[in-house]
Amino acid sequence: MANETVITVVGNLTADPELRFLENGTGMVKFTVASTPRTLDRASGQWKDGDPLFLTCTAWRDMAEHIAESLTKGTRVIVTGRLKLSRWENEQGEKRSAYGLDVDEVGPSLKWAQVKVNRMHRSKNDGFAPAEVPDDAWNAATPATATSVG
Amino acid sequence: MANETVITVVGNLTADPELRFLENGTGMVKFTVASTPRTLDRASGQWKDGDPLFLTCTAWRDMAEHIAESLTKGTRVIVTGRLKLSRWENEQGEKRSAYGLDVDEVGPSLKWAQVKVNRMHRSKNDGFAPAEVPDDAWNAATPATATSVG
Amino acid sequence: MANETVITVVGNLTADPELRFLENGTGMVKFTVASTPRTLDRASGQWKDGDPLFLTCTAWRDMAEHIAESLTKGTRVIVTGRLKLSRWENEQGEKRSAYGLDVDEVGPSLKWAQVKVNRMHRSKNDGFAPAEVPDDAWNAATPATATSVG
Amino acid sequence: MANETVITVVGNLTADPELRFLENGTGMVKFTVASTPRTLDRASGQWKDGDPLFLTCTAWRDMAEHIAESLTKGTRVIVTGRLKLSRWENEQGEKRSAYGLDVDEVGPSLKWAQVKVNRMHRSKNDGFAPAEVPDDAWNAATPATATSVG
Repeated sequence: MANETVITVVGNLTADPELRFLENGTGMVKFTVASTPRTLDRASGQWKDGDPLFLTCTAWRDMAEHIAESLTKGTRVIVTGRLKLSRWENEQGEKRSAYGLDVDEVGPSLKWAQVKVNRMHRSKNDGFAPAEVPDDAWNAATPATATSVG
Repeated sequence: MANETVITVVGNLTADPELRFLENGTGMVKFTVASTPRTLDRASGQWKDGDPLFLTCTAWRDMAEHIAESLTKGTRVIVTGRLKLSRWENEQGEKRSAYGLDVDEVGPSLKWAQVKVNRMHRSKNDGFAPAEVPDDAWNAATPATATSVG
Repeated sequence: MANETVITVVGNLTADPELRFLENGTGMVKFTVASTPRTLDRASGQWKDGDPLFLTCTAWRDMAEHIAESLTKGTRVIVTGRLKLSRWENEQGEKRSAYGLDVDEVGPSLKWAQVKVNRMHRSKNDGFAPAEVPDDAWNAATPATATSVG
Repeated sequence: MANETVITVVGNLTADPELRFLENGTGMVKFTVASTPRTLDRASGQWKDGDPLFLTCTAWRDMAEHIAESLTKGTRVIVTGRLKLSRWENEQGEKRSAYGLDVDEVGPSLKWAQVKVNRMHRSKNDGFAPAEVPDDAWNAATPATATSVG
């Protein structure tokens, strides 16, 4: 909660969000955002697309379920959170690492869409990650077969 | 488009957005976001609310209309844009200044809400401010009596 | 430490930093940064300066003293911190408000300068604001006549 | 210059910056920043270190040379720039990707250091990347043997 690397990304979901549940019932969701910068060519005065930035985002609890119910492949979103680096060894003992975004807040962009907002009953779960999340939480969690696909 | 002060604010709308139209038909919308930080009291281990930060946000064109159609007083939103300082003299010749946010993207937060997203036909208008906006654009613009109140 | 509005500003000091000390010996410093955005004119292909954004920044303890020793009027700096809104009534009972930046980190930009870095003994004071700062701390503090002017 | 993912990172250099020169004389520098978040344990009231985030940063032209002359292994810096994802195939035809930071501004933090600032003659080169940088620019560039080690 100090010296974290805060980042805001705007882009489109590359697929529907995937929702799973830990054994204790805590929901977790993953989705990937593709953000495409545009640069203005000084010679032609035209905008052109740059290389897309892909970021995998993880969210928790009530917010995880709201994401799975609200967003689908292609939705343009604004995500703000903290950039994290995970490092591990694979089964061959090779070192691997991956950057990801721990979501603080996310919502659909109103640039090219209108939305209808449904405020939910606010539970004690506030969307923050549980204090103790095992490193293999995602793999151990049970996919939500019924609810995640929009 | 270089050295701008980019900022992301999360908070609640203090009132319904106000939509107006310039003479040439360009839509513009204003709304104020109240963002309340929370600090963790080290002695008690309890969160407590800090002083709210209020920021007045301005958006343009199609996005302005989508905002007016989608957000209402109290909606929790994520806004990202550029912090601007306006300076002027009032009728008494006194110097006045105000900070505000030029909106790049905004959307409702999914922390305590679900949404239904309606993608709109994408016009040539891309939500950016027109190149030439007179300083008194807001006052000269015609309020949208019918459409702005959610 | 949650839901704070984090902001990074790049610009030039409008004057030498002002250093003061609270009665308990805690240092505090104030300085103002002018940040000038540049926009690329699509017709001419030329950059032109926009309106400057002025932000008053406050820092504490050891960092306050390092700022006073290191920065002077005109220095280009990078500042990151949290945007705050102060509200009060003046002696005439009129409501006043001011935006400011609580500094987390600041340093001189290397864009057009080189620097020589002198690491300091790291005291228990970590540059964070003391837990309890009276609202009139700045006015009650004693100016540092000798040390603040670079 | 639109929809870029702007990010500010605070951390320590893991090694001295490496400076190289393209054939046309353009300087480029790389350095890696390790940023360690701290979290406040609610039970004990103590701060503890989280997993460090490593980010490789690239800067250009005059700024590249100023970085090589000013920063060394261990220096605490503030870096602001744009998060980028590079994707390529290695000699075995395997897909590889890496996140990196295109530096807009960087400077040493004054949290635990004082600095002496030396403003440099400002050349036409403004520190931005040249318009056309070949993908293998770093490998093709000539290391600066004499100037990069502080």
